[in-house]
Amino acid sequence: MKRLYHWPLDPAGRLVRLVLAEKGEAFELFESTPWAPHPDVAALAYGAVAPALVETLPTGRLFACGTRAICEQMEEIKPAPALLPTDQNERAEARRLWAWVEAGCEEVTDKLLTERVMQWVRRDRQPDSEKLRRGAHALRGRLTFLNGMVEMNGYLAGRTLSLADLCAAAHLSAYDYFGDVEWNAVPDLKTWYARIKSRPSFRPLLSDRIEGTRPVSHYADLDF
Amino acid sequence: MKRLYHWPLDPAGRLVRLVLAEKGEAFELFESTPWAPHPDVAALAYGAVAPALVETLPTGRLFACGTRAICEQMEEIKPAPALLPTDQNERAEARRLWAWVEAGCEEVTDKLLTERVMQWVRRDRQPDSEKLRRGAHALRGRLTFLNGMVEMNGYLAGRTLSLADLCAAAHLSAYDYFGDVEWNAVPDLKTWYARIKSRPSFRPLLSDRIEGTRPVSHYADLDF
Repeated sequence: MKRLYHWPLDPAGRLVRLVLAEKGEAFELFESTPWAPHPDVAALAYGAVAPALVETLPTGRLFACGTRAICEQMEEIKPAPALLPTDQNERAEARRLWAWVEAGCEEVTDKLLTERVMQWVRRDRQPDSEKLRRGAHALRGRLTFLNGMVEMNGYLAGRTLSLADLCAAAHLSAYDYFGDVEWNAVPDLKTWYARIKSRPSFRPLLSDRIEGTRPVSHYADLDF
Repeated sequence: MKRLYHWPLDPAGRLVRLVLAEKGEAFELFESTPWAPHPDVAALAYGAVAPALVETLPTGRLFACGTRAICEQMEEIKPAPALLPTDQNERAEARRLWAWVEAGCEEVTDKLLTERVMQWVRRDRQPDSEKLRRGAHALRGRLTFLNGMVEMNGYLAGRTLSLADLCAAAHLSAYDYFGDVEWNAVPDLKTWYARIKSRPSFRPLLSDRIEGTRPVSHYADLDF
């Protein structure tokens, strides 16, 4: 069976879990955090970090690290159900927005999510309030953009679910765990998130409970 | 004919020019800078920025924005010559390292390249020496990692050229324009760069001359 090395609140690991579940792939989870990486991951390749997907086959070991490698490989190996549109322009848009979410949310993850993790999970320091403030400001900008996109099309890259949606939902779900997403300011995005949250692939993410933390009350609520 | 909207010193635009040239695709260039974006680009999609590739076909307009969308689309539409290995593990490694270069060099581009552009191209302010220092420090770290990778394999993701190499060379060539790459500290990477620099696809990049600037003396020298 496939093995996924991940950390439950890492948006990148969440995207991979969603993709594998949408594709109907079974996998075992192994924890690998930034502060305590699993030794299997570093052994895969120089500089490799989670998320990492590994499968031992009769022909040898198949592995991929990072969301771009894992998700594109899954799309190639198991094309159905498709998570990239077949229309070339929509396909390009899905990849543009997937890349936009990953690059654009890096600051939010770094300033907001990391500070929450340090505060509540590792308990090794008080959060830096200036960082939290800047992370929250960056998140508001990203939410406004995403709200505009789903308002036009229903999904980010058109009328069907794609990797862009799963990537955005993976990020927002991690921020939402600590209650950092102001859903009421972005009503179209809230409707979109409620729809994605109801997918069976999302259920395991909503069941995540990190030791020493309690998610915000609406975290797993499908009708929030 | 394909139209590419780009800015000559943008590493992302340089990657796309290399990919199109390696694939033997003809294209026309149109300038679109961060401070004066071409109106055609913004009209393509909400939030679209250069690099953007557009082609008008009898069936309609084909377009893609951003390196991930453009390069993956080119690989799908025109698979030969391949810029991603066929072996699944090497293919995943090429995508992991391509993503690593793009994410890891963002700080270098932001702190070092942008300051040089502000200083020499736009001439609208003196560079921030603290930013330059931090950018140079970040670049040294990236160079050390890349040197280790090519020392092992010859190319970044194995024994053949891939998108990971083109992406790294695109970034380093832009930093090299202003003389910011300390090649002598990374001898294996220097050998690798000399090999890539000699490819016909690289020639147009080495001919780039930005008004108001002069590249470092070894910039276009194949035997530097």
